Amino acid sequence: MYSLGNIMRFHLFGRSHGEHVGCILENVPSGTRISADEMRADMEMRRPKDGIGTPRKEDDTVEIVSGIKNGITDGSPILMFIANRNVDSSKYDVLATTPRPGHADLPAMIKWKGYDVRGGSQFSGRLTAPIVAAGSIAKQILQSMNIKIAAFARSVGIISDADARDINDAVASKMYGTRACSAELDGLMRSEIIKASNEGDSVGGTVECVVTGLPIGFGGIWFDSLDAVLSRAVFGIPAVKGVEFGKGFGLSGMKGSESNDQYCYDSGIRAITNNMGGVVGGMSNGMPVVLRVAFKPTPSISKEQRSVDLSVMKDTVISVKGRHDPCIVPRAVSVVEAVTALVLADVSMIERRI
Amino acid sequence: MYSLGNIMRFHLFGRSHGEHVGCILENVPSGTRISADEMRADMEMRRPKDGIGTPRKEDDTVEIVSGIKNGITDGSPILMFIANRNVDSSKYDVLATTPRPGHADLPAMIKWKGYDVRGGSQFSGRLTAPIVAAGSIAKQILQSMNIKIAAFARSVGIISDADARDINDAVASKMYGTRACSAELDGLMRSEIIKASNEGDSVGGTVECVVTGLPIGFGGIWFDSLDAVLSRAVFGIPAVKGVEFGKGFGLSGMKGSESNDQYCYDSGIRAITNNMGGVVGGMSNGMPVVLRVAFKPTPSISKEQRSVDLSVMKDTVISVKGRHDPCIVPRAVSVVEAVTALVLADVSMIERRI
Amino acid sequence: MYSLGNIMRFHLFGRSHGEHVGCILENVPSGTRISADEMRADMEMRRPKDGIGTPRKEDDTVEIVSGIKNGITDGSPILMFIANRNVDSSKYDVLATTPRPGHADLPAMIKWKGYDVRGGSQFSGRLTAPIVAAGSIAKQILQSMNIKIAAFARSVGIISDADARDINDAVASKMYGTRACSAELDGLMRSEIIKASNEGDSVGGTVECVVTGLPIGFGGIWFDSLDAVLSRAVFGIPAVKGVEFGKGFGLSGMKGSESNDQYCYDSGIRAITNNMGGVVGGMSNGMPVVLRVAFKPTPSISKEQRSVDLSVMKDTVISVKGRHDPCIVPRAVSVVEAVTALVLADVSMIERRI
Amino acid sequence: MYSLGNIMRFHLFGRSHGEHVGCILENVPSGTRISADEMRADMEMRRPKDGIGTPRKEDDTVEIVSGIKNGITDGSPILMFIANRNVDSSKYDVLATTPRPGHADLPAMIKWKGYDVRGGSQFSGRLTAPIVAAGSIAKQILQSMNIKIAAFARSVGIISDADARDINDAVASKMYGTRACSAELDGLMRSEIIKASNEGDSVGGTVECVVTGLPIGFGGIWFDSLDAVLSRAVFGIPAVKGVEFGKGFGLSGMKGSESNDQYCYDSGIRAITNNMGGVVGGMSNGMPVVLRVAFKPTPSISKEQRSVDLSVMKDTVISVKGRHDPCIVPRAVSVVEAVTALVLADVSMIERRI
Repeated sequence: MYSLGNIMRFHLFGRSHGEHVGCILENVPSGTRISADEMRADMEMRRPKDGIGTPRKEDDTVEIVSGIKNGITDGSPILMFIANRNVDSSKYDVLATTPRPGHADLPAMIKWKGYDVRGGSQFSGRLTAPIVAAGSIAKQILQSMNIKIAAFARSVGIISDADARDINDAVASKMYGTRACSAELDGLMRSEIIKASNEGDSVGGTVECVVTGLPIGFGGIWFDSLDAVLSRAVFGIPAVKGVEFGKGFGLSGMKGSESNDQYCYDSGIRAITNNMGGVVGGMSNGMPVVLRVAFKPTPSISKEQRSVDLSVMKDTVISVKGRHDPCIVPRAVSVVEAVTALVLADVSMIERRI
Repeated sequence: MYSLGNIMRFHLFGRSHGEHVGCILENVPSGTRISADEMRADMEMRRPKDGIGTPRKEDDTVEIVSGIKNGITDGSPILMFIANRNVDSSKYDVLATTPRPGHADLPAMIKWKGYDVRGGSQFSGRLTAPIVAAGSIAKQILQSMNIKIAAFARSVGIISDADARDINDAVASKMYGTRACSAELDGLMRSEIIKASNEGDSVGGTVECVVTGLPIGFGGIWFDSLDAVLSRAVFGIPAVKGVEFGKGFGLSGMKGSESNDQYCYDSGIRAITNNMGGVVGGMSNGMPVVLRVAFKPTPSISKEQRSVDLSVMKDTVISVKGRHDPCIVPRAVSVVEAVTALVLADVSMIERRI
Repeated sequence: MYSLGNIMRFHLFGRSHGEHVGCILENVPSGTRISADEMRADMEMRRPKDGIGTPRKEDDTVEIVSGIKNGITDGSPILMFIANRNVDSSKYDVLATTPRPGHADLPAMIKWKGYDVRGGSQFSGRLTAPIVAAGSIAKQILQSMNIKIAAFARSVGIISDADARDINDAVASKMYGTRACSAELDGLMRSEIIKASNEGDSVGGTVECVVTGLPIGFGGIWFDSLDAVLSRAVFGIPAVKGVEFGKGFGLSGMKGSESNDQYCYDSGIRAITNNMGGVVGGMSNGMPVVLRVAFKPTPSISKEQRSVDLSVMKDTVISVKGRHDPCIVPRAVSVVEAVTALVLADVSMIERRI
Repeated sequence: MYSLGNIMRFHLFGRSHGEHVGCILENVPSGTRISADEMRADMEMRRPKDGIGTPRKEDDTVEIVSGIKNGITDGSPILMFIANRNVDSSKYDVLATTPRPGHADLPAMIKWKGYDVRGGSQFSGRLTAPIVAAGSIAKQILQSMNIKIAAFARSVGIISDADARDINDAVASKMYGTRACSAELDGLMRSEIIKASNEGDSVGGTVECVVTGLPIGFGGIWFDSLDAVLSRAVFGIPAVKGVEFGKGFGLSGMKGSESNDQYCYDSGIRAITNNMGGVVGGMSNGMPVVLRVAFKPTPSISKEQRSVDLSVMKDTVISVKGRHDPCIVPRAVSVVEAVTALVLADVSMIERRI
């Protein structure tokens, strides 16, 4: 349930307001050099940005407990911890019996006796920290095969990036707090977020992820198709409500003569367009894989909302205080990159031998 | 790779132009009554409709080889065959070395030596026949728990159903060849398909699937979230390019105060709206689960398209003859229902005991 | 439940008195040449031998339905059937409500409504036919990596082969109907079987399997140790009641100074003895892997035994007629080889990349 | 690789000389009461006993990091740590390039670059501590279904317990340091261990595990047979070289008329004998499950043994100092109980619904 992967297996654990969160990554080939600096840089990208992120600040130092010695993997499972230091549960008492709209509270309260609502518990976005840490290792493994992964903010609320973007643009988004691809968009998206925040509200958005370097034929078939396994991993991220590849839903309104990516000879066979987002029949066609992910607005808002106090079964209103990101997109960019990397590194291990 | 499920496991096999296609369904509880009539009705829904489907007509009789005796499951794996009778490979010879745009041909040719391009081979939509057969069993199991699944055509090309639809509308779509929810939409969608067909072209569309009766809390967490496992199964269907739940991508442009489904008391707690499509935190919130699936246009079109003859590595043009559905949506409705049922029946077996 | 393997996955189906038994083997690398002659030879080894096997004679022709074309794998799942021709259920009617001692009847009758007791149903040794067919493919894959597998009859009843045996002896056992390693032992074992048969009784025995060519370090760790995954597969064979590696249970009475396989230099490091049966810490130490498997006597005997008629819940006696092998060992040798090969081929696919 | 279970999944991590060892147990039903006292008692059983165990003394306090609050499970993964306090690596320097006979050293050194030989590393018996902790939870879950598990020392070296033993005897073995079933055997086994220890040697033995309360039909089929999944888990324990059920290898020398457990009516159907160890056709027949496990002598002995210094590829001799148990059996009893419990608790979750 908290796991990904067939060969390079990833297991997640922890909760938002416990002592720490963490993960295990099994079967990383021994002797692989893992750069702590790159991992730090990846973790930094996930941290909340001034003005547009939660004031809860964690230093997010990754403690590698075992599996890596002197920067080299030793073949045993890689166990990583990230401490939860900045925990403040004072705001949560009121919520013990009243489920927050848009959250996992209602199903969790009904399903699990003794469910601990504080901080989102085991559903918390806090658990995406170890995902990013493990994803950094996966990205480094893929990098050595010349496979590159980068994502960016395609839209925030009504601000949408209308330009064609490639992996270089995606990499360049690291310069901007919102992970937009340009300074101008960064400004617009930032305003959109601040506006929502000032209104005690939140806003959604989309993340786009680009992968280059996959060889033609990379990926599985049917329920292990590249799009199938990637979408499962991406929908595992909290707040995701949609995933599409290439032109995605746009393809549903097209003719085949428009949508098909025709081929030409160009020192090898090459698709002329990339409407399919690099995946046909579940496998790479050699074009960049492009997937787009819809994030809903952060459900925690201070605006009053209707709910029901389950202890007395009466209508009530609720205003969620706590410390929350008014828009999850700027930080979610790293998480989409990370799960994409975890999936592709695992598939690459299967691919190498079939 | 051809498998779904943790407890009730589904394994698919066969190829388009082999003798038959089929599947195994393991761990269906023994003593379950399976109606052959319902299965026939489900299979009928997947058959091509006059005027808008492929002229390849298979009678699609499901031969239950083992696991069901006198309509009752016996606890052993259910093995089912569906014969391929109406096979005509004559149109495929030209394609042996020239990949069809939009198809799995290119990656498959490069990945697998001796890949048999005829009829889509192991990628063929023909393998969705056993999916529908197994899905019928899963639907019957779920029905006995009062869980209902029905899908319909939300759009075909530019014809889009703008109305709010519930499960009764979805069930009613069985009356119409296109699986539209009304006679009027059926006519419009049919024209859209015929128009494309007359132009030697094809058209895409979207399928919407509705599930009612899931108890609050039904579903897993993180990578086994209900949306995660459903999306993996749905992306396993050929031609799927996008999946979204509830308002899906639309949520990315909203404010939290608009998107959150607030709760009210109504002889129990109930969400007032269903923007989330029935899933929060990976679990059912008691509202109908609503997922929408984007299908690309059928890639096989007789219009000329550019490709490369890999035997001589030269540009060429290709016109795909064969017998193809100009729009896959009317038949795909059944397949979306089927994989949804297979996933939910499996999850229901896990749920019953955690 | 009917499956083995993480990458090269094996799925079994069918029942003793159904139309056929069969299996699916997924993820065999495409372009692998599979010799039909070798498969026939392997199947022949599993057939009952004159005088000491069941009179039920099946020709056991393997029908390869898909996945192999012109002797070459095409990357799609390999589906194989073996018809059940020589089915005679007339002897089974009496058993419908009285469980045969030593059989799966009692638990199966109580667990599964509508359980079909005829011929052992889904528990039948008949399903080992597709195991041997798939095992033949696995052995051919391993052969190309210079990994060899061969087994032989170490004992039948009280006749035990006391000599040291290596893989050449094991291969040579194919000359003898009992799969003993010498003509003398073959004669003794044959007499032991015939004697039991004449008394309306049956007899057990042990099979020993030898594997050479595994590189040092081959295998997993903890619950994926080589011995762990092999023992699971071997215990999956009907009638197996014990598995040991190297000196096995004999080691429990030894001192460490006797049991440890010390190392010497011999154009490389080499163990001087092989008490461990080639496995330390779950991995190959470069010595031949040696595992020994205990088979209980065939439970179906015509001698009268006590049982209970469950329809009236009264004591009764039972004499099992049908057509049964008085000793399963001569035929089980092939099955032990086959599951060993299926496991090792799968592990080899994981190994190649960690 | 470090994992067990399909539904209630167990993941192991850590290494002997790292900061701690630990595990994750997923999918334990929420609201389950877990007694810390029972867990402490189980952990105590695994600790080395005075005079016959290693002088390395760890207090083995289990730190439950998440998943259990106030003694009640909350539905999230249970994460447990056990600190490694008493670490002394000074004795290991000599071993860096010379593999110890009988250990995982040789395959591990060759397979994994940078393998850390100190203390057995990730192969260490130290990792059985979290297995026992998780097994305690599994035992408590099973206890609530009236399923009981207890093991004892059946033999140590040449001292073998010849009596028939049931679960009460097994439970009573907790009174004795060697886990023998009587004071007399305890004395004899203790002497056997001390004698080996005084000679700088070690000794092997067998553990027998008894399970009562499984309903008839409990267990899977073929490769998920009860014996198959139990043997995999048991062979995952370091130093195990053989597993048998009921009369096990003894059955191979019997006649069917002797080995078959015949049935009688006794306010229900009941087997008269238990030669099969409670398992037929992979499922429980209602009799106690009895499995016997062979442990090799501890490979670490101070007696001189031959090995090869891999750094210079020359013959050498080695004497393993460190602090080791001269016989692993007294402590292994708990570990066999624990893996048996982990497997059965997982199977019970599958069983409940098929």
